[in-house]
Amino acid sequence: MNILIAMDSLKGSLSSIEANRAIAEGFLQASSEFDVQTMPIADGGEGTVEALVLASNGRFVDTVVTGPLGKAVKARYGILGDGTTAVIEIAEACGLPLLTKEERNPLLTTSYGVGELILAAIEKGCRDFIIGLGGSATNDAGVGMLQALGYQFFTKEGALVGLGGAELKNIVTIDMHAVSDQVRNSRFRVACDVNNPLYGQNGAAYIYGPQKGATVEIVKDLDEGLRCFGDVVLDQLGMDLQKIPGAGAAGGLGGAFAGFLQAELESGVGLILELACLEEVLHGVDLVITGEGKLDGQTSMGKAPAGIARLAGKYGISVIALAGDVSEGNSSLHDSGITAYFSIVGGPVDLEEAMKPEHTRLNLRRTAEQIGRVLRMT
Amino acid sequence: MNILIAMDSLKGSLSSIEANRAIAEGFLQASSEFDVQTMPIADGGEGTVEALVLASNGRFVDTVVTGPLGKAVKARYGILGDGTTAVIEIAEACGLPLLTKEERNPLLTTSYGVGELILAAIEKGCRDFIIGLGGSATNDAGVGMLQALGYQFFTKEGALVGLGGAELKNIVTIDMHAVSDQVRNSRFRVACDVNNPLYGQNGAAYIYGPQKGATVEIVKDLDEGLRCFGDVVLDQLGMDLQKIPGAGAAGGLGGAFAGFLQAELESGVGLILELACLEEVLHGVDLVITGEGKLDGQTSMGKAPAGIARLAGKYGISVIALAGDVSEGNSSLHDSGITAYFSIVGGPVDLEEAMKPEHTRLNLRRTAEQIGRVLRMT
Repeated sequence: MNILIAMDSLKGSLSSIEANRAIAEGFLQASSEFDVQTMPIADGGEGTVEALVLASNGRFVDTVVTGPLGKAVKARYGILGDGTTAVIEIAEACGLPLLTKEERNPLLTTSYGVGELILAAIEKGCRDFIIGLGGSATNDAGVGMLQALGYQFFTKEGALVGLGGAELKNIVTIDMHAVSDQVRNSRFRVACDVNNPLYGQNGAAYIYGPQKGATVEIVKDLDEGLRCFGDVVLDQLGMDLQKIPGAGAAGGLGGAFAGFLQAELESGVGLILELACLEEVLHGVDLVITGEGKLDGQTSMGKAPAGIARLAGKYGISVIALAGDVSEGNSSLHDSGITAYFSIVGGPVDLEEAMKPEHTRLNLRRTAEQIGRVLRMT
Repeated sequence: MNILIAMDSLKGSLSSIEANRAIAEGFLQASSEFDVQTMPIADGGEGTVEALVLASNGRFVDTVVTGPLGKAVKARYGILGDGTTAVIEIAEACGLPLLTKEERNPLLTTSYGVGELILAAIEKGCRDFIIGLGGSATNDAGVGMLQALGYQFFTKEGALVGLGGAELKNIVTIDMHAVSDQVRNSRFRVACDVNNPLYGQNGAAYIYGPQKGATVEIVKDLDEGLRCFGDVVLDQLGMDLQKIPGAGAAGGLGGAFAGFLQAELESGVGLILELACLEEVLHGVDLVITGEGKLDGQTSMGKAPAGIARLAGKYGISVIALAGDVSEGNSSLHDSGITAYFSIVGGPVDLEEAMKPEHTRLNLRRTAEQIGRVLRMT
């Protein structure tokens, strides 16, 4: 029996690769006759670079860029096996985990480092980009990134605007002459699973500002800045960012990618699975094992396991999902193509204990072994 | 696929019958083509009467007997489908749950009601008895039961002794003339999974006295009483109760059954499975589902799931065990014949929450459905 193991990470506990390994061990414990292959999976969020680099036999590049508050930060990106496609998680350059709680203030934070990461990859010969948008600490409409890429934003006095969300409302002119051909000729695909517009009640500031440290006052201020910026872009470049679903992702980076860099905003899972060539890998596979930290009915539909189940279903391949928590699972999981799902916890246990990596590893291994034994039985 | 579902109870949560029903529902949810039968199971402890009565299409009889402190208590026993075999759990007549914590004192408690239950069943025509020994509140060497059955115990002044463990050391003469032929001709099989001798450091008083409310002083006193009684029995009847493994079960009821009533003390699981005709039922079965509240490696070897797995293994039938907690499970479970085992909890949860009957029911049903879906898949 050919088994493909393609777990998403169990966030806060095990990476996709570690989870896959534990499950593979469990199946091989049940029978050495199982033919087991693993594929690291992500949903466009954390772990995307690692998953795609490993799935494509690519490489990691470590570099240093401008952090969200201007201080240099170490940032890693990936170059896929083809040697010309870069994978970037924007959180590496401007993510919330780079700041203490006290430092978080989207009036000040910038996405400048994201532009630097792109330039670094261009210098290595990359022209295709896969971007994961999750976890930004910014609300600067991606202006910081665009500044790094050579776009110039001027105040009404003709001065270059500075960094941070507070500067958006000072922008009155945009100049693109300094943008290099390499940037202009690059192609961007962006993993984006939200539909928020740039501004307004469902926009970047109102929906995501508070978790980035914005007070009610600051949210209002940020939203005003996004609106001004949107108006200037529409007026001068004829692009209506507000009309792009997902423009409000990552503090407006979604809009900058889609509007200025002609990126497609795509479902993260779909994008990752396409890049990992899941459909090709599925040839000859009899059973797929997937899963994540928590499986919860409807809400998991955008996530990796459901995406994988959909593709496997296309070829009539059975799918078993494993998760730390399936207590909110229901029959809609079966409708989405998941043949069966199991919790990996061994009994009553508190969440913190259950999430300890060594426990998750043991739990995955034990559950996989039991499933393997059931399969062998028949 | 023919599936036999034979769960032990999940103590404190669901009875064997309820657990079986939930699992059956889960399998039938997965596929209406499963051929599912259920068999209630017990290990000689609580639930034994219910399991055997239901397995044999027998009936329950409600009666009133002398409770552990002399007050009348309602007690239920069973008559198996054959109409002549009674099943009695001694806890119905003299169990710990019949007393408040304050009332518990094995100097005073008596097993008299057990004898009354036996007489009641004899009156209904029963001559074969299955006895479950678990949970007694007594330490009277079964003298109370024997008194009810017509055995007479005298003090050195020639008076009949009273009830309770404190009376043991007053016994100097035993008279059996008043014991009826019906009692003498009855056959007793006793489910007993402990090996404790009547008295001494591993005897009834030292090992089980404290949980029945005995202080250190009282334990010493009780042990002395058991020893005196053992000596009188040896002296007058030539029976060495102390040499009978399990004589110390249920405060010495084990010794009374084995010595006075010629009972066999047998493994509870073995006895129950034999009576339920498990071996015959297994003909044509492809898969057995069993389990209990907690599966824990070696220690579960005497319990129902291991006993069932052993028998199923004899016929090469696969066994899947389900439990609320398998976190201490290990590969010795597989060695004991359990093909695969799964925890039914859906995720991190505290014990009290997990044990709520409605949760256990849902968890069993969900897990069974998933296993059914895996089986159907192949």
